[in-house]
Amino acid sequence: MTNLFSNIPAKLPEEVFEDIIKTPDVRIERIISKGHTTPNNEWYDQDENEWVLVVKGEAKLLFDDEKEVHLKEGDHVNILAHQRHQVSWTDPNQETIWLAVFYK
Amino acid sequence: MTNLFSNIPAKLPEEVFEDIIKTPDVRIERIISKGHTTPNNEWYDQDENEWVLVVKGEAKLLFDDEKEVHLKEGDHVNILAHQRHQVSWTDPNQETIWLAVFYK
Repeated sequence: MTNLFSNIPAKLPEEVFEDIIKTPDVRIERIISKGHTTPNNEWYDQDENEWVLVVKGEAKLLFDDEKEVHLKEGDHVNILAHQRHQVSWTDPNQETIWLAVFYK
Repeated sequence: MTNLFSNIPAKLPEEVFEDIIKTPDVRIERIISKGHTTPNNEWYDQDENEWVLVVKGEAKLLFDDEKEVHLKEGDHVNILAHQRHQVSWTDPNQETIWLAVFYK
């Protein structure tokens, strides 16, 4: 048994990405952000679909049709493969814990 | 955008199982329990692996080697295919929200 809120680094100079489950078909990842955004305003353009949940904290996702979604605790979105997006904001005052499931 | 804590039925005569994502390879499911346990103390014996997270509430999982794990908010376990298990307890005083990812 592991806890999603444990082993959070005291300092977060970079976002933290950790695989929880990894198989050829699916990857479950924990992401920890604290004020981070996607570096250089680049777009994520992924070969896999990504279902993402904000378990704790707050964040904003920007899509390349200029739609921005503000995610709070419990909010989840499904990002289709090659749906270009970036993390445009995360709360600088607390850790945001994301759960992401990448799948084909 | 959907919220994991929204649309919770006021009454829960039965556990609620809802697919969030379903493909041939992966299924993400929300489960809502309130005092429920696995009916008739039967064992779940599944063809797929199941990664399960308690997002809110508390529950106990019993494995057929008699090991019981008490899951609280943020706790997650990975249940391998055909690892027999049952839900032996869920908090009767609040909803327990589970997130389950079934994968091959």
